[in-house]
Amino acid sequence: MRTKAAVATAAGKPLEIMDVNLDGPRAGEVLIEVKATGICHTDEFTLSGADPEGLFPAILGHEGAGVVMEVGEGVTSLKPGDHVIPLYTPECRECEYCLNPKTNLCQSIRTTQGAGKMPDGTSRFTTLDGEEILHYMGCSTFSNHTVLPEIALAKVREDAPFDKICYIGCGVTTGVGAVINTAKVEIGSRAIVFGLGGIGLNVIQGLRLAGADQIVGVDLNNSKKEMAERFGMTDFVNPTEVGEDLVPYLVNLTKGGADYTFDATGNVNVMRTALESAHKGWGESIIIGVAPAGAEISTRPFQLVTGRSWRGTAFGGARGRTDVPKIVDWYMEGKIEIDPMITHTMGLDQINEGFDLMHKGESIRSVVLY
Amino acid sequence: MRTKAAVATAAGKPLEIMDVNLDGPRAGEVLIEVKATGICHTDEFTLSGADPEGLFPAILGHEGAGVVMEVGEGVTSLKPGDHVIPLYTPECRECEYCLNPKTNLCQSIRTTQGAGKMPDGTSRFTTLDGEEILHYMGCSTFSNHTVLPEIALAKVREDAPFDKICYIGCGVTTGVGAVINTAKVEIGSRAIVFGLGGIGLNVIQGLRLAGADQIVGVDLNNSKKEMAERFGMTDFVNPTEVGEDLVPYLVNLTKGGADYTFDATGNVNVMRTALESAHKGWGESIIIGVAPAGAEISTRPFQLVTGRSWRGTAFGGARGRTDVPKIVDWYMEGKIEIDPMITHTMGLDQINEGFDLMHKGESIRSVVLY
Repeated sequence: MRTKAAVATAAGKPLEIMDVNLDGPRAGEVLIEVKATGICHTDEFTLSGADPEGLFPAILGHEGAGVVMEVGEGVTSLKPGDHVIPLYTPECRECEYCLNPKTNLCQSIRTTQGAGKMPDGTSRFTTLDGEEILHYMGCSTFSNHTVLPEIALAKVREDAPFDKICYIGCGVTTGVGAVINTAKVEIGSRAIVFGLGGIGLNVIQGLRLAGADQIVGVDLNNSKKEMAERFGMTDFVNPTEVGEDLVPYLVNLTKGGADYTFDATGNVNVMRTALESAHKGWGESIIIGVAPAGAEISTRPFQLVTGRSWRGTAFGGARGRTDVPKIVDWYMEGKIEIDPMITHTMGLDQINEGFDLMHKGESIRSVVLY
Repeated sequence: MRTKAAVATAAGKPLEIMDVNLDGPRAGEVLIEVKATGICHTDEFTLSGADPEGLFPAILGHEGAGVVMEVGEGVTSLKPGDHVIPLYTPECRECEYCLNPKTNLCQSIRTTQGAGKMPDGTSRFTTLDGEEILHYMGCSTFSNHTVLPEIALAKVREDAPFDKICYIGCGVTTGVGAVINTAKVEIGSRAIVFGLGGIGLNVIQGLRLAGADQIVGVDLNNSKKEMAERFGMTDFVNPTEVGEDLVPYLVNLTKGGADYTFDATGNVNVMRTALESAHKGWGESIIIGVAPAGAEISTRPFQLVTGRSWRGTAFGGARGRTDVPKIVDWYMEGKIEIDPMITHTMGLDQINEGFDLMHKGESIRSVVLY
């Protein structure tokens, strides 16, 4: 079939809106119509050329929601008409990783997905001239139609609005899941969140949902305060206004250090501050942000020997097919909020404007509606 | 009273054997006769002057076993004749730390202990000329008699031999406890232990006790192999003989990385190797070794984001009054071995020879018998 997509033709260039060819689903695959997709920093990271594993030409986008149109041979868990959220971290429920309760990092299709291909090693996308276009993170939601493996689709309730739940495909789950699945924050905890962008706000509402007593938000930009408070932040700290070293300031503010700290900045220096402002004896620091290629974190080992732990999370520790439908339920039940974070919507033709809004820091999340 | 002690008069100098004055126990304190004490690398670290928090003159030693001679006012859990092991990490069972099940780092007397004093801020030791001599790690087991807070003594069974169980006061508990209390290693796990000195051997026997399937030992010295195998090591790796990068070699050897890795070297580069040879998705790396002052660990945050965690342990995560008596039981029941690790014994007058044996790498543990 022919569909319309925003194609990343090369690093550093704007996306090109064009018609492309899309082959139908092969065995174990599913064709979906994408109804909405968010524009995430990870798309920007790849498009900019900063991602050393970025491949071109490709159809980016990994934060979508849509409807099943056609299923390939052997697909049993989905049928045409089902509402779905694509999963860049699939859940095969059969690999060594899926069978280990300590991780969500299903490895069943990692190699082909990383190479921009479907599990059989080929792409479903071609230009009208017949040249191959690569998939991206197994999702390619910047195309009005796309093909995914069955194991990379979460079936969700049909009364949930696509233009909001698409954000559960990445940002919401990453932030809320870091709290619920990775840190397993207990009621009454004190926490610090570094970076009050889209991920940070979702960490904050995850902490509220988990019953944290103190939720400190740290950001260089005072304009982030109001929105963060709306999602549950109890204390705001702008490091440039503290007038002393940030770590002792935060340790004091949290009565000895936070039980949990979260880095949602991707800055390795902030990651160190996050670790060191965790409580001696039991504080855990969770890295969510993606650092620039080659950047390294460091600290004195004494920080760990005295009881802090340094961990990370990907896709919020969520097993997509199992957990994403629950997060959609939480949204529909009002346990978490999404609507205020979707600050801009646009058509596919305006997708580059969404990237511009992100660069300028004017959006929390821009969503493309097909 | 007067007793005989090995006094550290200044950094870098041999210990001086001399008679010293020891005041009796004050409220909450206990006078013990030390029957045996191990010589640990931490004593050497302080004596050498490398410990930035080292204070002199002091009576070092923190790995002892002995008998209660006299108890101060208000002491209820111990009486003369009880057999005890001194605890450099006390267990008050009342502070914020003791009441948090996630940590063993009782903070109730930390400040005075760090200053070389008893909890009331004074020392019980003086020279025969009346000059103050400091306590060390709250223990000072290089004195034939010493005074400790009640909360810093574990009462142990009376049929256990002092010359062996003194090692439970530090090395055994640190190594075995890192496995049992901190990592909580599960049956069937794969593990890597870096450094096959006294701590590493105890990690290995802790792993055997926990039912690990694969126990890889890494050391630059092939002569460590035989003893480590005796304690349960299944695979020996000498990095100088591997002929390729150590991390991929170890990942391959452990079928994808180890479930748990332990650094018992104190070398920050080894700590990084330990983290990176842990399994993607769930591998945990535990730092046991004490690094040189100012040394820092580092890695790419991607290592954590893909599911490894970086942690540390002090005193094997053990709550001394609760856990040390259990470890003594394990020794008496044959669940763990200590005898082969006590390679040398000597009188207090020969204690400097014990340090020499450590420097030369000829001892696993030297024990001073009073």
